[in-house]
Amino acid sequence: MEPRISIVTIAVDDLDRMAAFYVAMGLKRHEGITDGVAFFQMGGVILGLFGRPAAEADSGLKFGDGIPRVYLAYNTRTREEVGKVLAAAQAAGGRIVKAAQKAFWGGWYGYFADPEGNLWEVAHNPDFPIAEDGTISLPPEA
Amino acid sequence: MEPRISIVTIAVDDLDRMAAFYVAMGLKRHEGITDGVAFFQMGGVILGLFGRPAAEADSGLKFGDGIPRVYLAYNTRTREEVGKVLAAAQAAGGRIVKAAQKAFWGGWYGYFADPEGNLWEVAHNPDFPIAEDGTISLPPEA
Repeated sequence: MEPRISIVTIAVDDLDRMAAFYVAMGLKRHEGITDGVAFFQMGGVILGLFGRPAAEADSGLKFGDGIPRVYLAYNTRTREEVGKVLAAAQAAGGRIVKAAQKAFWGGWYGYFADPEGNLWEVAHNPDFPIAEDGTISLPPEA
Repeated sequence: MEPRISIVTIAVDDLDRMAAFYVAMGLKRHEGITDGVAFFQMGGVILGLFGRPAAEADSGLKFGDGIPRVYLAYNTRTREEVGKVLAAAQAAGGRIVKAAQKAFWGGWYGYFADPEGNLWEVAHNPDFPIAEDGTISLPPEA
């Protein structure tokens, strides 16, 4: 495989509620494809919300319960933004899992969970530069 | 939040095994940051593997078991690639969950699970164009 992730899908129990949460977070739902799914263009990646029964039927797998061990990070351009994004998540119906604080890896960070318990880290990490278009890069290896 | 996903993290039980799987899939592990973590630059997004106990301690949450309901898609440039990526996943120690076949949404697709059961859809969807740099776009809304 080439180095890319095309879509991150969250299998959701309540599509309307979850789509409303991500819209309240400032994302723009795609208005063209809305039948049983919600799509958000996230720079060069797509975030999809797909009903859990449909996703299970399609893959033939039953998903586990609890907090998924696959989770997302949203990196901010400034340290101040971390707390603002966490507060916005709470205001939108999510939950602050870890308040903004100094990270063991040197930056500033926290966690929120969306209304169905999917986890997002929110982090300001000056070592991982964010380009104007939002893409993020690992630091040089040497 | 601005429309981006910075990092997709998979909390793993066996970091070496899981890193080896993704390397065998053709990804390049970042050689600079390797202590308890594996990072892969995926275009403008980062894929991270992080030990499950450390990830749980850091977030203060215990993750659920079973197949995570957050999963990833890798979109291919051609229909033929779908089966090739699934075969490569099997050869690398993963499992083909759904063999390459016609999709209900009109394209060609299948699923594989990595060695710890994390799900990837592999799809050829001509309606979602892939740019030369690997970024993907939703179709026009109208």
